[in-house]
Amino acid sequence: MNQKKNQVREYIQAHQTKGVRLLKRLVQERSVSGEESKAQAIIIEKMRELGLSLDIWEPPYSEMKKHPYFVSPRKHFNDSPNVVATLKGTGGGKSLILNGHIDVVPEGEMKQWEYDPYGGEVVGNRLYGRGAADMKGGNVALIMAMEAIIACDIKLKGNIYFQSVIEEESGGAGTLAAILRGYQADGALIPEPTNMRFFQKQQGSIWFRLKVHGKAAHGGTRYEGISAIEKSIAVLEHLQKLEIKRNERIDDPLYESVPIPVPINIGKIEGGNWPSSVPDCIMLEGRYGVMPNETIEEAKQEFAAWLDELGHSDAWFHRHPVVLEWFGARWVPGTLEEQHPLIETVRENFRLVQQTEPVAEASPWGTDGGLFTQIANIPTLVFGPGETKAAHYPNEYIEIDKMIAAAEIFACTLLDWCEVSDG
Amino acid sequence: MNQKKNQVREYIQAHQTKGVRLLKRLVQERSVSGEESKAQAIIIEKMRELGLSLDIWEPPYSEMKKHPYFVSPRKHFNDSPNVVATLKGTGGGKSLILNGHIDVVPEGEMKQWEYDPYGGEVVGNRLYGRGAADMKGGNVALIMAMEAIIACDIKLKGNIYFQSVIEEESGGAGTLAAILRGYQADGALIPEPTNMRFFQKQQGSIWFRLKVHGKAAHGGTRYEGISAIEKSIAVLEHLQKLEIKRNERIDDPLYESVPIPVPINIGKIEGGNWPSSVPDCIMLEGRYGVMPNETIEEAKQEFAAWLDELGHSDAWFHRHPVVLEWFGARWVPGTLEEQHPLIETVRENFRLVQQTEPVAEASPWGTDGGLFTQIANIPTLVFGPGETKAAHYPNEYIEIDKMIAAAEIFACTLLDWCEVSDG
Repeated sequence: MNQKKNQVREYIQAHQTKGVRLLKRLVQERSVSGEESKAQAIIIEKMRELGLSLDIWEPPYSEMKKHPYFVSPRKHFNDSPNVVATLKGTGGGKSLILNGHIDVVPEGEMKQWEYDPYGGEVVGNRLYGRGAADMKGGNVALIMAMEAIIACDIKLKGNIYFQSVIEEESGGAGTLAAILRGYQADGALIPEPTNMRFFQKQQGSIWFRLKVHGKAAHGGTRYEGISAIEKSIAVLEHLQKLEIKRNERIDDPLYESVPIPVPINIGKIEGGNWPSSVPDCIMLEGRYGVMPNETIEEAKQEFAAWLDELGHSDAWFHRHPVVLEWFGARWVPGTLEEQHPLIETVRENFRLVQQTEPVAEASPWGTDGGLFTQIANIPTLVFGPGETKAAHYPNEYIEIDKMIAAAEIFACTLLDWCEVSDG
Repeated sequence: MNQKKNQVREYIQAHQTKGVRLLKRLVQERSVSGEESKAQAIIIEKMRELGLSLDIWEPPYSEMKKHPYFVSPRKHFNDSPNVVATLKGTGGGKSLILNGHIDVVPEGEMKQWEYDPYGGEVVGNRLYGRGAADMKGGNVALIMAMEAIIACDIKLKGNIYFQSVIEEESGGAGTLAAILRGYQADGALIPEPTNMRFFQKQQGSIWFRLKVHGKAAHGGTRYEGISAIEKSIAVLEHLQKLEIKRNERIDDPLYESVPIPVPINIGKIEGGNWPSSVPDCIMLEGRYGVMPNETIEEAKQEFAAWLDELGHSDAWFHRHPVVLEWFGARWVPGTLEEQHPLIETVRENFRLVQQTEPVAEASPWGTDGGLFTQIANIPTLVFGPGETKAAHYPNEYIEIDKMIAAAEIFACTLLDWCEVSDG
C-alpha cells in the first residue's frame, strides 16, 4: 500500500502544472448561479478524458420544489446541469462521494480587486480569482486525486462518485438533486475552504423574517401611539436571551474557542415611513444558527416557542404577536462523530502527507454536508485546501501547494477507503 | 361698542348659509401642495366682492431658498400664488393679520372615507371634506367676520391683512413669503383647528436623520463584527434620556396634563441588506420637538452636543461618531405670553359669544405662528373652530355652529383691536 501511495503522490507532484491549468480554466468561467454550464462543460470534458461514466442532468425544479429541504431563489434550473462522474470499482470496497460545487458568489465591487476575478492569475504560490478557494481549487484537488489513481493504473474495489453540483451558495439545491437522483455512498468528502482543517461539524442556519407591530400616532403626541421600534428592541433583547440559552447548552470541545457557536444574527431592519409619525410596523430579517446535532425542525420549534413567550409577560405582544416567517435560504447542519472511520482514514493520510496532526473545528457556516448527513445518512467530512477567510472576499485565492497536498491526501484516502483491488 | 358687536354678530348669524356655501366651494377644490390656484381663485373673487385691495404673487423660490427658515420639498412655486387682501383702516388703530393656509394634506386612502373628501357634504351640523377643519373652515370664519364689518358699514382705524397662504403643511413657505414681502402688524390670528381652545404656545419641530455605523461580518461569526442595529439601540436609549432631560425642564402649567410636552420621535429605521450579514450601517429618521420658548438653533445645539456625549463613554462611538443631518420639514415653535393684550381681547370676546372661559393649551405641533413670532416679532394667537382630531384624518369635518361662533368672536375682536373709527 505504501508503494501505491507513493506512486499516486509522485504523480500528483509531477503534474502540478496540469492541475493549476485546469483550475485556471475553471476560474475563468464566471459560474455564478444560473451561469454554470460553461464551467460544467470543462468538468465534463475532463471526466471524459479520464474515462468516467457521466450523468448530466438539469435538476427538475417543479418536482424538487415539493421537498421540505428544497430552497432556491431560482425559478428553474434550465441550462444549469448537475454532473456526476462515476469511477466504477471492482466490487466489495467502500464507496465515496467526492462533492464540490461549481457555482461561485458574484465578484462584488470590481474596484476592490487587485486581480481580475476571472483571470486565474498565478502569483508565486497563489492562484487568484473568484472561486479559487470556494471551491474550484478543492474540486481540482479531487480531480487530481482521481487522475493520479487512474494514471497509475490502480483499480479500486469501491465506487467513486465525483459530483460537480450547482447552487450550493443559495442553499444546496444541486446536492439535494444528486441525493434525490439516488446517489448513495459509504461516505462523502467536500473540500470546501477549511484551510486544511477538519470541519467535522457544521453550523446550519435558516433565515427568518419578523413583523413587529405598533400603533401609529403623530410624533408630536407620540405617547398616544406604540412605537414598533421600541417593541422591536424588546424582541431583539428577547432573542439575545435565546441565543445565550442555546449556546449554554453546547459543551462540545470543538466549540471551546468559539465565542458564540450558533449565533442569532439580525441582518436587516426596516420600518416606519415618516419622521413625524410613530411607526406601526417594523420588519426584521435574520439568520438563525442551527446546532450541528439538532434538526432544522427542532431549531424552528424552539425559536417559535420562545417568541410566543413574549406574549406571556407583555400585554401588547399578547394582543399583537410578533409574526414569524421562515424564508429564503437554509443550510442544514452536519455532524460526523470524532471516531468515525472516514475521519480516521483522512486523518491518517493527512499525517502522512503533512507530517502533522490535523486541526478539528466546527464550522460557523453550513455546507452541503448537512444534506448528505440529514437526508441521505451519508457520513460526511468537510475538509479542503482553500482559506476560509478568502472565500466570498475580493482577491480570493488559493495556495497552490495546499491544493496539491490536499490532492495527495484525497488520493491516499481513496486507496484506503475504497481499497485497492488485487485483480 | 356693544351695539356694533350685536350688529356684526346678527349679520353673521343671518348669513350662515352664505358662509357654508363658501366653505363648500373651497373644500371642493383639492388644494394640495402645488394645486392651490383654483381655491385661491375663489378667495380672490370673494375679496374683490368685499372691495379689498389685493396682492397676489408667486413666492420667489430661488430668493426664498436663501432664508434660514425656508423649508419646502418643492422646486418652484409657479401657479401657487399667495394672496393678501388688505382692508385699509382710517388710521391710528392697531393692525391685525388674519392668516389661514389654503393648502390641504392629501385625502389618503379613499376607502376609509364615508364622504367624498372633495364633496363638502353637509350632514346636520357638520360639513365634511378634506380641509374642512384644517383649515378652510377657519378661513371662512375670518372672511365672515370681515364681511360682517364691511356689510354693517363699520370703519376701523387699524389695517386688516387677510392672508391666504400656500405651503403650511410642508413647513410654512407661504407665510414666510408674506413676511419677507414686508407684511407687518400688531398681531396675528391663525384659526388652525384648535377646537375653540387657545393655543398660546406651539411646539416646534425639526426632522433629523442619523447614520449609525457598525462593522460588517458574516452572521455565522457575528462576534467578529459590530452590529449597527445594536449600536442604534444604544443611540435610541441615549435619545430617550435627552427627551426626559428636556421635558423635566418644562414647568409651564399649560403642559401640566401633557405626558411628554416636546417628544423625540423616531419615525423610520432602515439598514442592513442581508439576513446572514452583520449590518454595518443603520439610518434613523425622526422628529425632534422644540419648546415654545427656545429657538431652533438652541434646540439643534443641545441635540448635537448630546449625541457627541456618546463618544465619551463608548470607544466605538468615539471612533465612529453618529452622523447627524437636519433635513426636510421644520416648524418653528411659537409662544405668546398669557397676559398679552391680543389674548385678553380675544378672551373677552370669546366670553361674550360662548358665555364661558376659553381653555388655554400648548399645542403638540407647530403652525405658521412660529414664523410670525420668531422672524417678524408679531404676537400671534392660534385659535380656531376645527376639531384637532379631525385634521389629516379620513372623514374630516367642521361643526358649522363652531365656525359661526368663531366668526362672531373674530368680528368682535377686530372691532376692539383695530378700534371703530368715529369718522
